[in-house]
Amino acid sequence: MKMLINVAENVVADALRGFAAAHPELTVDVERRVIVRRGAPYEGKVGLVSGGGSGHEPLHGGFVGKGMLDAACPGEVFTSPVPDQMVRAAAAVDSGAGVLFIVKNYTGDVLNFQMAAELAEDEGVQVVSVLVDDDVAVTDSLYTAGRRGTGATLFVEKIAGAAAEEGAPLDKVAALARQVNSASRTFGVALSACSTPAKGGPTFDLPDGELELGVGIHGEPGRERRAMMTSGEIADVTVEAVVSDLNPDGPVLVLVNGMGATPLLELYGFNAEVQRALAERRIPVARTLVGNYVTSLDMAGASVTICQADEELLRLYDAPVSTPGLRWGC
Amino acid sequence: MKMLINVAENVVADALRGFAAAHPELTVDVERRVIVRRGAPYEGKVGLVSGGGSGHEPLHGGFVGKGMLDAACPGEVFTSPVPDQMVRAAAAVDSGAGVLFIVKNYTGDVLNFQMAAELAEDEGVQVVSVLVDDDVAVTDSLYTAGRRGTGATLFVEKIAGAAAEEGAPLDKVAALARQVNSASRTFGVALSACSTPAKGGPTFDLPDGELELGVGIHGEPGRERRAMMTSGEIADVTVEAVVSDLNPDGPVLVLVNGMGATPLLELYGFNAEVQRALAERRIPVARTLVGNYVTSLDMAGASVTICQADEELLRLYDAPVSTPGLRWGC
Repeated sequence: MKMLINVAENVVADALRGFAAAHPELTVDVERRVIVRRGAPYEGKVGLVSGGGSGHEPLHGGFVGKGMLDAACPGEVFTSPVPDQMVRAAAAVDSGAGVLFIVKNYTGDVLNFQMAAELAEDEGVQVVSVLVDDDVAVTDSLYTAGRRGTGATLFVEKIAGAAAEEGAPLDKVAALARQVNSASRTFGVALSACSTPAKGGPTFDLPDGELELGVGIHGEPGRERRAMMTSGEIADVTVEAVVSDLNPDGPVLVLVNGMGATPLLELYGFNAEVQRALAERRIPVARTLVGNYVTSLDMAGASVTICQADEELLRLYDAPVSTPGLRWGC
Repeated sequence: MKMLINVAENVVADALRGFAAAHPELTVDVERRVIVRRGAPYEGKVGLVSGGGSGHEPLHGGFVGKGMLDAACPGEVFTSPVPDQMVRAAAAVDSGAGVLFIVKNYTGDVLNFQMAAELAEDEGVQVVSVLVDDDVAVTDSLYTAGRRGTGATLFVEKIAGAAAEEGAPLDKVAALARQVNSASRTFGVALSACSTPAKGGPTFDLPDGELELGVGIHGEPGRERRAMMTSGEIADVTVEAVVSDLNPDGPVLVLVNGMGATPLLELYGFNAEVQRALAERRIPVARTLVGNYVTSLDMAGASVTICQADEELLRLYDAPVSTPGLRWGC
């Protein structure tokens, strides 16, 4: 498997150096692996911190900036960051208004963020943690007890980030983050496996002519394998999986997310089928976002996230955001 | 080759339907294949129109919006749009201030935009065309007489778009577009071939363990094949190719562009090496953009574009832009 890298051991450090060069508006500590919004901490503002294994870019480092995260902690590829990174990030963004940890539900992340929260509290930083567990495909998967955290992370970070930017207090920001997670569901499909630099090849076998329904963002097994389907058939399975679990009774935000290697041309075509499948179920769509946001290295495939959004969530979703990976209104 | 599509014949129409659903701020004529900025024509504003084969998304449709293009005409995959599309686009965006056609240098595009310019002039629309031919790899390639037009298209559309947004007249906007093209050079590298829906598989063979230096955005042959290289070695070859051709004597804009299937993590790591290679040649970097902007379906690899930018070009590059694929400052 050919990769555009030097050596596998340095992939994350190299990427952080290149990220720092492209984004002088952020403070990137390459050695300690913390990305912080320039100017943080902001007086009176709740600090938002997230992080997780690398390989899902632009998540999370690409979502640091005005109206979203104050800091991100990238781990090794598909490996949780360590508590030291999170403690450092919390200290860097706490203005005294407290810090929200946004944690995708993987065992390593959960344990490390929990330890970091305790350490940060010892240093006088008030921390509240919110778990993201939106993936309906399976429970108790590889690396996870309960449901996995995937695409809804974008909605949680965007909406909680907008509330924090407006000056909402920690309990309100945390409640909103939990509300977004509760109102969100995701289902993903892989057309190919992803290859990690450390392994140098595919992390699982997916035979020619088959796809994996319900795949995780590290290539974890999903619900089943089937013979290759059309975009319309995949949209039907995917939309049915999220809608039947959430049962939305109002407008939804939709994220049609590429896993990494699927061309934007195909993602937009898939979006047409997702919209059709939602319309058939009489589910109104308030906003749609299409692109590569929560990726799995070079995996081909896509996931669909829906989030039932009341007027307040919609207003916060539409609020200005300025990060490397998501930007509008400013 | 598995693809997230229904049938190959409908890929572009399906994508346009999905694009329209995600971007209600644009007017998408799916049947006639024209994407127009809502509200166009804008009184007194020069209209910018571009287009080309599909498969390079977000180019060009993703660059329609405030501060960039007024309209785009997507052709079939890797196939020029037809003159009818361009004439329709020109009519839709002409306020009487004239229209600029931005044409990548491929024989089909050049001929069809030329015919469209004549037809539009017959209808009373003043048209000036500007050719983009920035790819230093080869001359007289497959589909092209002269150099190919690739990554610099983004800089041309961004900078000319900013000037038009400010109210610059047609001759000034065209002169700026030509200046940007003259000041830009690109060189691309493929780690894998791309697969078109029509063919259903790779458009060329690239053996395991080899890469193609100087590849075109349709997989056209480059300068040579070599055994796989490190990111640092690839950056050296790529930067040397563009710098030795342009010989910049001032700050440059840098685009580190993914071909489609290369993870963002790798692109950022590659950027670190590109910056190192530029610094070794004492070339100051004014701005850096990293991401998938001028793609080749699911090709793995990257291209580097540099554009020597005086203060005026830099000011226009930094000006607000709001499109699906590029957005800042508004």
